[in-house]
Amino acid sequence: MSMIYLDNNATTQVDPAVREAMLPWLGEQYGNPSAGYRIGKQSRKALETAREQVAALIDAEPGEIIFTSGGTESNTLAILSATRLWPERRGLVSSSVEHSAIHEGLGYFADSIGYSPDSIGYNHHEIAVDADGVLDLDAWRAALETGDVAMATLIWANNETGVLSPVVEAAEAARDAKVYFHTDAVQVVGKVPVSVDAAPLHSLAMSAHKFHGPKGIGALYVNKHARFQPSIFGGGQESERRSGTENVAAIVGMGVAADLARQRLDEMQSVEELRDRFERGVVAAIEGVEINGTTDSRLPNTTNLYFPGVDGEGLLILLDEAGVCCSPGSACSTGAIQPSRILKAMGQSSKRARSSVRFSLSHLSTKAEIDEAIAQIEKAVGKLRIVLPSRR
Amino acid sequence: MSMIYLDNNATTQVDPAVREAMLPWLGEQYGNPSAGYRIGKQSRKALETAREQVAALIDAEPGEIIFTSGGTESNTLAILSATRLWPERRGLVSSSVEHSAIHEGLGYFADSIGYSPDSIGYNHHEIAVDADGVLDLDAWRAALETGDVAMATLIWANNETGVLSPVVEAAEAARDAKVYFHTDAVQVVGKVPVSVDAAPLHSLAMSAHKFHGPKGIGALYVNKHARFQPSIFGGGQESERRSGTENVAAIVGMGVAADLARQRLDEMQSVEELRDRFERGVVAAIEGVEINGTTDSRLPNTTNLYFPGVDGEGLLILLDEAGVCCSPGSACSTGAIQPSRILKAMGQSSKRARSSVRFSLSHLSTKAEIDEAIAQIEKAVGKLRIVLPSRR
Repeated sequence: MSMIYLDNNATTQVDPAVREAMLPWLGEQYGNPSAGYRIGKQSRKALETAREQVAALIDAEPGEIIFTSGGTESNTLAILSATRLWPERRGLVSSSVEHSAIHEGLGYFADSIGYSPDSIGYNHHEIAVDADGVLDLDAWRAALETGDVAMATLIWANNETGVLSPVVEAAEAARDAKVYFHTDAVQVVGKVPVSVDAAPLHSLAMSAHKFHGPKGIGALYVNKHARFQPSIFGGGQESERRSGTENVAAIVGMGVAADLARQRLDEMQSVEELRDRFERGVVAAIEGVEINGTTDSRLPNTTNLYFPGVDGEGLLILLDEAGVCCSPGSACSTGAIQPSRILKAMGQSSKRARSSVRFSLSHLSTKAEIDEAIAQIEKAVGKLRIVLPSRR
Repeated sequence: MSMIYLDNNATTQVDPAVREAMLPWLGEQYGNPSAGYRIGKQSRKALETAREQVAALIDAEPGEIIFTSGGTESNTLAILSATRLWPERRGLVSSSVEHSAIHEGLGYFADSIGYSPDSIGYNHHEIAVDADGVLDLDAWRAALETGDVAMATLIWANNETGVLSPVVEAAEAARDAKVYFHTDAVQVVGKVPVSVDAAPLHSLAMSAHKFHGPKGIGALYVNKHARFQPSIFGGGQESERRSGTENVAAIVGMGVAADLARQRLDEMQSVEELRDRFERGVVAAIEGVEINGTTDSRLPNTTNLYFPGVDGEGLLILLDEAGVCCSPGSACSTGAIQPSRILKAMGQSSKRARSSVRFSLSHLSTKAEIDEAIAQIEKAVGKLRIVLPSRR
């Protein structure tokens, strides 16, 4: 059975060219980049090439890129840095639709999630979004003006709905309030052009496996004029900002993936056309389907669909059997499926959240796959809608 | 020119079987382990197999293994956890010969290194070692009895000298004093049998690339009865203890490497014989050479040699030209070569430290390589000893 992979916001297939570029660094080229001999220096040089490639993808300077183990670590490092740099400030500002890396990270400091055995006791201002997932900028600005904010952080593109945040306005508001501004750009980088020059950012998190690089590698951009407080201590790698022997193979892979992503940004228009074809097809084939989140400002590859009267979990199971891979929303937690925190933050009911499914495409998606996926979804929803009433 | 690699404490060559096992997870098997569909479940299953393999290497249970991005992160997570679990305790106990991951991590809290913009103000008791690198256990016990200690941590085998610490006695003293005990086992795992049952450990750090696994992956063992406070927040991976999409390929590689390391522990006797042959050969060939650190209790693969009247940096350069890879000690920092903090903690002079070089073997080292290395070292030392006096 062939597979139709429509879960590219969860992770992407490693590009064959990326894998190829990684192989020598898992083979003969095993030198520690900190070593002074030949194979060590070759590893170091490979890191610096990759740093240039990653920097180029977001218009940064190579020295502004810190390699990390992924998007989650990048986001965590930004939070830990900001809270330590301004320990006297006890406010944290974010949107209500952050990825769990930020939601749980800020939650730790706000002690709202039950992580903290000591009472850290920050005030976490989670700024609301409307029913379309769009941030309330007035509330954002008001929260920043309390004068007690250590950090403001905003997801650039939401992982579940693809809705793009008003990062420029939000960052400018933070700058005006003299507050550190971070953006979780994990889902946006590689899908639409992202420039760190577009907004006054202090830091930005990204992850290679969201744009056809390997898992386990990411980067934190830190503006060269911003202060940064390290949280992983040791040998002083990454210019004293993130210690630990560098994951050379994965860093090389991220560099090549960044290069390819930059070259492929043009292709995202075709991805968008396919996504729109998919949405139109599903809406036409299945009664009552609605799109979650605004369609005005959204990632080109993502759609989050509400199937009234359909159990989302059941739909995922049937689609898996039919070879279609998609997701209830975030791929970050397993086990018991909770109704999406993101859709609930948009004011949607738990019932609607439980009947919603995310589909995310990539440049590898084809028209034939999309048409087949539509047919399979129609079939699965038909089954579920017949079955459900009889259960009562 | 063929290369003679004698820097296996810095990093090791990825075993071809490890690389082979990783490849599918950089190819078709790209599913996110948190996803419910087939390729997601296959990734999850691969993680759990690797977890069993890594656990088996140290007699742990799979549920006690947390995958991290490497030894440095593992050590940092243990420090961050302990300091948060007992925030009212302001003492930290370690030896004076810790790897920089622990040295700098504790230094952050003790504010002795200048990391901390806020004043964390812990007391860091760095317990002395003697001229042979052996810990003063009486002083260790006395420091624990202050009643104010959040954490005691001890390097199991020193990375520069290979000297093994009295981990059992040190851990028992911590248990008696009701203090959290962590061990940095990065250099020892895979070189001698390590069992978490041997001592009352709360946590233990390890790193795959020290035993022929890939870089960028490690583990933190946390005893199932010990409390643990996460520091990287997000989707709740690793049983809520370390978030972030799992580095599936590297974790699979670490599992296979752990399996191979366990099977190869018997081979370490041959490695030890080669190391001894190397030491004897160098001592016989070059006047005045001395071994740094005790030879009574030492890793089988490591030797740290003092070459009187020889500039260590110059020796490394000449050996690199001759294809022999070795190291001034720690491979964790680049740039300006400082005299080894470890040798200085053993009471050695800066001059002796600057004239010392670490050689570390693996099961891949051969008798022919060792004999060739001895000859090259003799040649290089001869050149340097002739050159040096004329510079005056």
